[in-house]
Order: sequence, then structure tokens, then C-alpha cells
Amino acid sequence: MRAAILSTGDELTTGRTLDTNAHYIADQLLAIGYDVTGMLVVGDYSDRIEWAWRRLFEIADIVVGTGGLGPTADDLTTETLARLAARPLRCDADVAANIRRLFESIGRRMPENNLKQAMFPEGADIIPNPLGTAPGFRLHIETGNGARTAIVLPGVPREMKQMLSADVLPWMRAQRRDNFEYRSHTFQTFGISESALDELVAGVLDPSTTRLAFRAAFPQISVRVTVHAAPAEVEERLADAVTRLRERLGPHCYGEGLTDMETEVGKLLAASGHTLAVAESCTGGLIGHRLTDVPGSSRYLLADVVAYSNAAKREVLGVGTETLERHGAVSREVAEEMAAGVRRLSGATFGLATTGIAGPDGGTPDKPVGTVCLALDGDGGHFSHRYQLWGSRDWVKLLTSQIALDWVRRAELGADPTAAEILRK
Amino acid sequence: MRAAILSTGDELTTGRTLDTNAHYIADQLLAIGYDVTGMLVVGDYSDRIEWAWRRLFEIADIVVGTGGLGPTADDLTTETLARLAARPLRCDADVAANIRRLFESIGRRMPENNLKQAMFPEGADIIPNPLGTAPGFRLHIETGNGARTAIVLPGVPREMKQMLSADVLPWMRAQRRDNFEYRSHTFQTFGISESALDELVAGVLDPSTTRLAFRAAFPQISVRVTVHAAPAEVEERLADAVTRLRERLGPHCYGEGLTDMETEVGKLLAASGHTLAVAESCTGGLIGHRLTDVPGSSRYLLADVVAYSNAAKREVLGVGTETLERHGAVSREVAEEMAAGVRRLSGATFGLATTGIAGPDGGTPDKPVGTVCLALDGDGGHFSHRYQLWGSRDWVKLLTSQIALDWVRRAELGADPTAAEILRK
Repeated sequence: MRAAILSTGDELTTGRTLDTNAHYIADQLLAIGYDVTGMLVVGDYSDRIEWAWRRLFEIADIVVGTGGLGPTADDLTTETLARLAARPLRCDADVAANIRRLFESIGRRMPENNLKQAMFPEGADIIPNPLGTAPGFRLHIETGNGARTAIVLPGVPREMKQMLSADVLPWMRAQRRDNFEYRSHTFQTFGISESALDELVAGVLDPSTTRLAFRAAFPQISVRVTVHAAPAEVEERLADAVTRLRERLGPHCYGEGLTDMETEVGKLLAASGHTLAVAESCTGGLIGHRLTDVPGSSRYLLADVVAYSNAAKREVLGVGTETLERHGAVSREVAEEMAAGVRRLSGATFGLATTGIAGPDGGTPDKPVGTVCLALDGDGGHFSHRYQLWGSRDWVKLLTSQIALDWVRRAELGADPTAAEILRK
Repeated sequence: MRAAILSTGDELTTGRTLDTNAHYIADQLLAIGYDVTGMLVVGDYSDRIEWAWRRLFEIADIVVGTGGLGPTADDLTTETLARLAARPLRCDADVAANIRRLFESIGRRMPENNLKQAMFPEGADIIPNPLGTAPGFRLHIETGNGARTAIVLPGVPREMKQMLSADVLPWMRAQRRDNFEYRSHTFQTFGISESALDELVAGVLDPSTTRLAFRAAFPQISVRVTVHAAPAEVEERLADAVTRLRERLGPHCYGEGLTDMETEVGKLLAASGHTLAVAESCTGGLIGHRLTDVPGSSRYLLADVVAYSNAAKREVLGVGTETLERHGAVSREVAEEMAAGVRRLSGATFGLATTGIAGPDGGTPDKPVGTVCLALDGDGGHFSHRYQLWGSRDWVKLLTSQIALDWVRRAELGADPTAAEILRK
């Protein structure tokens, strides 16, 4: 089955707002077995909106549109589709009453133009919107290319997503003429490039019933497997594919489902009762920022000292003057003393430290931009390593923070943290 | 003049990659006076690509396409356009020699399929690509809708952006039949909502020759003014519009051009020779992370202590046990002692501190989620304030970091930092 996606709004065609709705919907449609043949954006003009629907019906059986459902004069989706389908607009009494009630509940008079949101082309199936005043609808239209379905949702991402999962996706799944069910599972990986991942998992799955999608969001790459099969078999098939992939991905996979490194590190620390203290130089607070993005992180993150100057390294963390002079601030030796220092200062189970040259300035022939030293200090041992990373300042910071968090994860699993791989170019 | 944008790639229609190219190009085309009538995405299928070009030529005089210029079999843009225009493909000897040279320079043998990138439809104008192996091209095509121009660029954002600004935009500007020149200027604001900004600047500019575009990227909103006029007048018109807007925006504007709060704070500190030390609780390292994203920040950022636990507040920063017990960790009093403590520890000109409840847990009736206290300690005075913010954990962290940086900016300008406005709901 072929689907297309239409996004409507002047804010999109003027480059003012990035259209993330279409991207989200495409991902969801793929997971239920649809082929997305096109994604189109047009501004708030009735002739352009009509042109867009007509053209997308040429390449798709179902077109999912977002935007243009508001109460104002430039919200044109409903009337344009009614005209295209040659249906009159009718007011839905229940929807109208509900909109009135919503305004009453916040003690405000309803502007009359809001009733526009209760008007639908005759014969449309209304899609409830529990989070806003504008419901969506589904409309069957006979076109020169055959019978087509228009699905219309509001452009507000929160409302769109809720209606998509509660109503649109189940309905679209049921339209598929085969009897297949679709199930997905996601792995999060780090330390391996997309092409290397592709090679690693080659041949492990049956391509006629499974589909793999890689999604890179630096510094992690997610691998999603989607299995389709008859309802009675689909769970078993998915479990089989997941087992095979899990084995093949091995240590490259650090988590499953919608997760990230800081969340996984947090889970491990919360479960073990261990605590962490961080001393950051080149990462400048990013490790602390990432760790504290996880709710409840105050249970295991005791302190983070961003010792950007040598004076701070000496005076707050107790790094030796001689160590700094002899090895330089970017060295394994200084990283080790930073990790030990912040651990001593805080009494944490682990002391983690970074020092490096994020660039663009500060590089030398011996220590070019991208030179980064990490250290981890704990009862299980003292580890340090020097890496040669690459890329822009923010890339070096982000990659360093990811490797550092992966060290803690590996240490919590009882493995050698320095075995962590860095993302291969 | 009407333009449309086409993005080609399976990674876009499968929701694997978010298309940011089209958004970027739309913004640039608006600034040189084009009306973007549509933005379309299709996968790597020759029939879909051909359909897409044909359809977009219905609504635009010039179509800018990205993607599908690589060396592999699924890169179909060039051959599809040649077929659509009924032109044979020709190898460009200079481009071919250049590709060979690039491979030689990195000591690798060139795979023969790379020569595909030297093939162009007969009559095409080649657009050089100084950053990669795939040049773009411009091709004039007679269609059923009239004479049209296809402009083709690689999908790699870095290469696309360079070619767009060096070649495509000047060429497109020259195609406009009126004699107008376009000039833009951007203001960065904080502490005011988009609708309040809209009201604030209402009526200040002549709508027949100026256009305003707001672009919200939380926590900042940029205001771009674009002026068009005859070449002899355009600079004066822009200067006039900028002066009027600058006056109207007043303290809501913290910088002009492509900048952000951490860059502006860094400029002020670098110019004054002052230094900064930060003590973060609820922001968890984000202030340090933002400050150290600016190259050269080691000159003015001395240290940042993320004192997430009370023990760290006491032992590293010297916050009094009695202060913690009496007022609680989230209080102006504790923020003040944190700021004074980190300043003392580092010898910085300013000590800046945050403490608050980012949520989702930890709120109380007295101090609900979003309660945040800031303090700034310096020779010019000691400031502290309690704010009631709102939103999710990451939102509270980001908004707090923005207000805190704005405090430093205001202090550097000799103003009362606590006069900083927070973003109105």
C-alpha cells in the first residue's frame, strides 16, 4: 500500500519552522508496512492545497495531511477538501458542543469563528482530538486515479502524534489487504559506523519478512528491526529476529528501546547503589548536563567539577603542579589525578575525568586538536587512555562525553572500560 | 518569481533522516524575494523522481533539487533529468580529471563508477563543488508549462550550503525581472514571546518594502528584517529599518546577526578581561557546557562546580549547614553562598549560581517544580532572585541557563541583572 504525506503552512514554506511532522509520520507508516511515495509541503493558499492533494492522489492510496485546521481565515484544509470531493460542509453538533464546553471550562467566551472547527465535509469520519479543539477527519474521495482516502490531522505535533497512534495507524493497518501484523524492536549502538553496522548484520535476517532501518543521531545509531507475519506467528518471529540481532550486535549495543547512554548509565548506577563524581575539562560540563537530564540523577551523581583552568585543576581537584608541568594539562597523568581528586572530594564510588583539546585552537604537533585523555578511578581499578578524535569543537565534546559515559557503563558491567570503541570514521 | 524545492532520498521517505536541506533553502530563497510554492520529498526511484520534477515545474519557474548525485546505482537524479529534458549525457573532461586527482591525493584508486559524477545532460551549466566530488548543475528545460530551470545540488548539507551561497543564490537573484536588491539583518531576542514581539514591532516598518520573519529556537527568538529597494537605495533603507527595530526591541535584543547568548556573554567577558566561575545545581553542567561551546572560553571561564548533592554544596562550595537546614537547598540564601563560594574558590570576577527543582519529582507545595533561585556575586554587588518557571525538566534547565547567562550579560553592561525578563508564557 502506498501512502503520501502533506504538510500545510506558510511557516514551513518560508523556512521559519522545520517540518518534523512528516518525518515522524513517515517513520510510523514504514513500521506498519506502508511505502511512503512522497512528502509535500505547501503554504496556506487554497489553490496550492488543492493542487497538492490532487497530485499526491496520483502516487498514493492514502494521503495523510497535517495543518490548516485552525479557526482563522488562513486555515483552508477542510473547505478545500470538501470542494475537491464535491461535498457540502456540515456542522457536527457534538464537536460544536464540545468546543463550547472547552471555552466555558477556562471561563472564556468562544469567538464565533471557532465553530469553523466543527465543520466537516459530508460523509467524513471524524477523528477525535483529546488534546485540542480541532478534530481531524477521514474522507473517501473518488479521483481520476481511483478511490482514495484523505486523512487530515492538526499540525500541532502533540495532538497529531496522539491521534496518529490512537486512530490513524490502527485504521491504516486494517486497510492493508494482506493479513500481516507488524512488530518492531530498536537497538541503540555506539562505537560503530552505519556502514560497519550494515556489514555486521548482513545475512542475519530473512529479508522477505524483516526490514532493518538504521537511524543515525550522533553519537548514537539506532537499529530498528520490523517483522511482519501472520498474527499467530508475529511475536515469535520478532523474538527470533531480536535474539539474532542481539547476538550479532554484541557490545556495540548499549541499550534497547527508546533510550540513550545517560539513561542506561543512570539505570546501572541506580540499581547498584553506586555513586559518580565527574571532573571535566574539555567537555566543559556536558557530561554533567547529560547525566542530569535523567530524572532522579541526584541519587547517583554527587558532584561535577569543570576545572577549565590549571589553577582550578590544582586547587579544587588537587592535581599536582609537577604533574601539570611535566605532562601538560592534556595527559593521562593529569586525567588520573583529576579522577582521583574528584572522587576523594565527593566520596563517590567512581571518579571520572576528561581533559583534551576540543579546538579549533590549542593544538600542537604532539597533541593536535582532538587529543583527549580519559580516566576512571574506582575500587575496581584505575583506568586511563588517550584518544585521538576528530571533527569540530562540539563534535569532540559530544564524542568525548559519550565515550566517558560508556566507560562508566562498562565498569558497572565489570568490563574493562578502556575496551570501549570509539566511532570509526 | 516562484521556486520549489525537491529533496531526493530513501532515507528521507523512510523517516530515517530529517530533511533539513529544504528548510534551509526555503529560508534563503525567501530572503532574495522568491515565493516558495512547494517542497517535495521522494525516494530513489527513477519514475518518482521524474514525476516530482514534472509536477513541481507546474507550480514554479525554478526548482532546486538536492540529492541523488552520488556514484552508486540508486543515485538517479542526473539521468532522470536528462531523459525528462531529452538531452544525452556527456562526460565533462575537467570534472573527470578533478575526481581522479582527488582520489590520487588521498592515495586511493578511483572506483570506475565515480566517473558517473562527471556526466551531465548536454547543455547543462556545471556548478562547482569545492568541498566534494559531485558538482551540481543548472539545466533549462522546455515544459508544457513553459520554460523552466532545474538546479541540482548534492544532498550533503555542507556542500549544498556552500554551492547555494556561492553560485545558486547570486544566479537566482539575477533572474528576478524587477530591479530590486534584497538585504537582511537579524536580531536575537530573549524574554519575550513571539506574539508579544509581533505586537511590539507592529507598525514600525513599511510593509510594502520590508518583511519580518520570526524564528523561534527556544530559548531564543530571532527577528529577521528583509528590505527590498533599488540598488542605490537598499543600504539606506536597511539601515533605517534596523535603527527603528533596534530602538523598538530595546533590551529584549541581546545580539545581532547569527549569535547566541553564550557567544555574546563570551564577547563581553573577553573584552573586559573579567572572569567567571559557576556553581550549578539544577542546571547540572549546562551553563558550563554552553559557555565552553564558544572557542576561546578558557580565557574567561575559570571553573564550574556542579554541586548536585548537599554534601558537595557544603564541602566544595562552603555553603553553611545552617543555611541549608534553615532555608533548604533551593533558596536564595543557598544560591548566594554557592555564588560566593565558587568565586572565592576560583578568584573569578563573578560567581554565578543556580539551584532549583527541574522536576518531574522533588516539588513541594511551597516550592513546586520549576522553582529556581539564581545568585550573582561580584565587586559590583550581590544579586539573587527566585523565579517560578514551568515546563519539562529539559525546558527548566535550558531556561534557567539562559536567564543565568543573561544575568552575566546585564552585569557586564552595568545593569541590574535581576531586571532580566523571563520568557512570558
